[in-house]
Amino acid sequence: MVDPRFHPSAGPIALARLAEIAGATLGPGADPARAFAGVAALDDAGPEHVGFLDNRRYLAAFAASRAGACVVQPRDAARAPPGMALLLTDQPYRGFALVARAFHPEMRPPAGIDPSAVVHPTARLGAGVVIEAGAVVGAGAELGARVWLEPNAVIGANVVVGDDGRVGANASIAFARVGKRVHVYAGARIGEDGFGFALGPRGHVKVPQLGRVIVGDGVEIGANTTIDRGSVSDTVIGDGCVIDNQVQIAHNVRVGRGCVLVAQVGISGSTRLDDGVVLGGKVGVAGHLHLGAGAQVAAHAGVARNVPAGEVVSGVPAIPIRDFRRLAGTWRKMSKRRGPGSSGDDDAGA
Amino acid sequence: MVDPRFHPSAGPIALARLAEIAGATLGPGADPARAFAGVAALDDAGPEHVGFLDNRRYLAAFAASRAGACVVQPRDAARAPPGMALLLTDQPYRGFALVARAFHPEMRPPAGIDPSAVVHPTARLGAGVVIEAGAVVGAGAELGARVWLEPNAVIGANVVVGDDGRVGANASIAFARVGKRVHVYAGARIGEDGFGFALGPRGHVKVPQLGRVIVGDGVEIGANTTIDRGSVSDTVIGDGCVIDNQVQIAHNVRVGRGCVLVAQVGISGSTRLDDGVVLGGKVGVAGHLHLGAGAQVAAHAGVARNVPAGEVVSGVPAIPIRDFRRLAGTWRKMSKRRGPGSSGDDDAGA
Amino acid sequence: MVDPRFHPSAGPIALARLAEIAGATLGPGADPARAFAGVAALDDAGPEHVGFLDNRRYLAAFAASRAGACVVQPRDAARAPPGMALLLTDQPYRGFALVARAFHPEMRPPAGIDPSAVVHPTARLGAGVVIEAGAVVGAGAELGARVWLEPNAVIGANVVVGDDGRVGANASIAFARVGKRVHVYAGARIGEDGFGFALGPRGHVKVPQLGRVIVGDGVEIGANTTIDRGSVSDTVIGDGCVIDNQVQIAHNVRVGRGCVLVAQVGISGSTRLDDGVVLGGKVGVAGHLHLGAGAQVAAHAGVARNVPAGEVVSGVPAIPIRDFRRLAGTWRKMSKRRGPGSSGDDDAGA
Repeated sequence: MVDPRFHPSAGPIALARLAEIAGATLGPGADPARAFAGVAALDDAGPEHVGFLDNRRYLAAFAASRAGACVVQPRDAARAPPGMALLLTDQPYRGFALVARAFHPEMRPPAGIDPSAVVHPTARLGAGVVIEAGAVVGAGAELGARVWLEPNAVIGANVVVGDDGRVGANASIAFARVGKRVHVYAGARIGEDGFGFALGPRGHVKVPQLGRVIVGDGVEIGANTTIDRGSVSDTVIGDGCVIDNQVQIAHNVRVGRGCVLVAQVGISGSTRLDDGVVLGGKVGVAGHLHLGAGAQVAAHAGVARNVPAGEVVSGVPAIPIRDFRRLAGTWRKMSKRRGPGSSGDDDAGA
Repeated sequence: MVDPRFHPSAGPIALARLAEIAGATLGPGADPARAFAGVAALDDAGPEHVGFLDNRRYLAAFAASRAGACVVQPRDAARAPPGMALLLTDQPYRGFALVARAFHPEMRPPAGIDPSAVVHPTARLGAGVVIEAGAVVGAGAELGARVWLEPNAVIGANVVVGDDGRVGANASIAFARVGKRVHVYAGARIGEDGFGFALGPRGHVKVPQLGRVIVGDGVEIGANTTIDRGSVSDTVIGDGCVIDNQVQIAHNVRVGRGCVLVAQVGISGSTRLDDGVVLGGKVGVAGHLHLGAGAQVAAHAGVARNVPAGEVVSGVPAIPIRDFRRLAGTWRKMSKRRGPGSSGDDDAGA
Repeated sequence: MVDPRFHPSAGPIALARLAEIAGATLGPGADPARAFAGVAALDDAGPEHVGFLDNRRYLAAFAASRAGACVVQPRDAARAPPGMALLLTDQPYRGFALVARAFHPEMRPPAGIDPSAVVHPTARLGAGVVIEAGAVVGAGAELGARVWLEPNAVIGANVVVGDDGRVGANASIAFARVGKRVHVYAGARIGEDGFGFALGPRGHVKVPQLGRVIVGDGVEIGANTTIDRGSVSDTVIGDGCVIDNQVQIAHNVRVGRGCVLVAQVGISGSTRLDDGVVLGGKVGVAGHLHLGAGAQVAAHAGVARNVPAGEVVSGVPAIPIRDFRRLAGTWRKMSKRRGPGSSGDDDAGA
């Protein structure tokens, strides 16, 4: 249940308005004037709540739900319990996102600078910025309109953060130009030195890291994620990318528009991702590779070769996912009996 | 050797008292009145120190140790060097933990609020709280008795931290209710937005994250670990869980009581772990799964299916560990010769 | 292109001087008096820039480059475009590092303590220290000459940081002795409690962590990396190690001199690495193991056994890399057809 202590609702909102917001049509018999108080999970919801069904794993919870309304695909409408108002759309998760945002618009603190924040006199601040306690803004930095720095965030010298940006608690940004509407979550590290050393037996020589991090518009960068700046050219994150927690992006990596990087991904130096690439959780990608537009990598895979546009790969080293599934099926069978030539070795600890 | 600069000893303590503390019995010939100054590793210890033997990998170090006393299982007593006093117990590591705590009780700074900390006037503070330099406490937050915030920690609006909690340097907590005796280590991120987007070719729509993080009593949350809040329901960590560094727990995950999550584990959204689950280092678990009570996953495994209670699995994708060991043995043999149908391909870089 | 907003150049510098700095010889026809303004990537460079060629993957970019000069191996000189001055050396990456450092010496802010920093009166500060806004220095800590604390960094009680150290934004150090010329990047966590619990069905008993972290000279510790202190003995990082972002090093680990740990590596408790060990990205190493001098582990591998000096291993569990490549080749073939005994199982999701 949504806790009003943390998430007060802007409701009630009438069903007809919710349908409009969600881009949905009302199911048969729904009362357009019926008012709703907020959203809830299907198994938690009451008559005053709107839920959603997207993953059909939860069909049974849908059928048993007490939710007053539900955003759902037309194909699943017949499973609805009696009395539930339906908001029908082919994209229920998207529709629900819009409904939830209507009940819970983003809350920003009032504009202003906490007296404990330290803002360099040469920094330029846009209208309506929020700078919370203990945040630090370096010399020559530029914050766009309505930029919000949470407590103890650190903006380095000459960094630019575009309009409507948000930088989480204890996050830090250096050597970077960040676009508009970018949310950097707590503890993320943008613009630290890339890992560049000329290795040698008599000592490793550090290579100065002289590039920047360039972040496009509408990007999300997860908590404790690290994005190093380029060595001579730049590290680039395209518009609309969504990057989860604890992702590591090395120097000179170029990520196209709208890519999705799930938690604990690691991308080695100078690799390029074209638009719309999706990397599952814990994926690792070697350096100097190219992943074509729309390529997808399954969770836990290790990519050691280029991936053509649109291909889906899995495994370590990664191969086409169809092949990997066949291989894993073979492994499963091999695991149940003595392998070819096996003499019973059973001690391969992990 | 324990460095008194960092860890002053509360000793000396007599052997009889140490046996009582450890729940151990004294070995033959041990002098109950003999006093000890502190603990030490077996290969570092002198006659004034208490060591322990748990992992039998270190039997030789035990046999050669100069430690004055040792917490040890009865079965290993015969290997002790002459003159070593033995503290006999079936749980030597537990016994040693209790002895070490007696010599080194947790040190807390004196109660008080550093003048540089920023505490919102509407926050409620329990008796004896310690708020160190640069820490920030948001509006409506509640800190229980003796809660300790280390420097630059950030507690968000309306967050609750129970009695005897401790929040490490530069850690941050938002949208959370945290139980008693919880230690959140430096740099951990509790309660950031879950990774929820309705993905689409014309842009990803962010789904508001309207849940909380609920943490039970007696939980440890490691350095730079991230635990996202729920999307509509809550992310829940049960009583007595121990969570290592750099663990990632996604939105809506429910972790039962007494679970052990080793470093760099990642758990995807909406997965449930029942009580006593153990995940080894770097384990990844896919979303919407269920791991039954006492299930164990070996380090580095990737779990893509439900795991029944009590089962032990390994591998990517994870299978029963007995099967995995057999499979790995087969792989080892295959790696030594041309595989079936192989023509000598040798270039599968990783 | 290097952005002077972030990285102003100390140039121009004459070619003869650059050759001296790089330890290179001038190629035929090069004018020793020709002046250069800075460094650039081969595909970005103009006549006023110095580039480099090390990875031959970029030979075509070299041949087409407009760079005025290039640090390059003699074997590749013939591929240079007309008019490019060559700086010939067998170690072009090292040579380039030195040239780049000449154009861009490390910039340090002027010595001084920001009024918002909180330094305990018993801390001892060397000459020329820089303590930026919001940084905190605990009781009895010692900072050597010219140590630089970036904003909101936290130095715990009694910690020692040697001359010319640098601690990044929001990083924290506790229970540690750190050598000279050590750079701890933003968000790193040095000296938190090791993960030590005596596990038991009636609750896990925490084992006090009574050791330290000892860091040698000339070490780099990446952003959001975590290094736990020892349990009874110490965690030790040898001189000249380079450690990337999001690496996890558990209690009692001992890392020799000059080791290279790439991003997202995890090393379990009490494992020892001798000098010059290299661990690729995302490598995991189990506890209580020994990796001999110069051992190398390929990215994504999981090490479950000791590795002899000089050996190169790959895979999960890790085996000699030659064997792993053969095995991966066999897998690739198996993945293309029905495996031995396979009946077409195709559902091994990942």
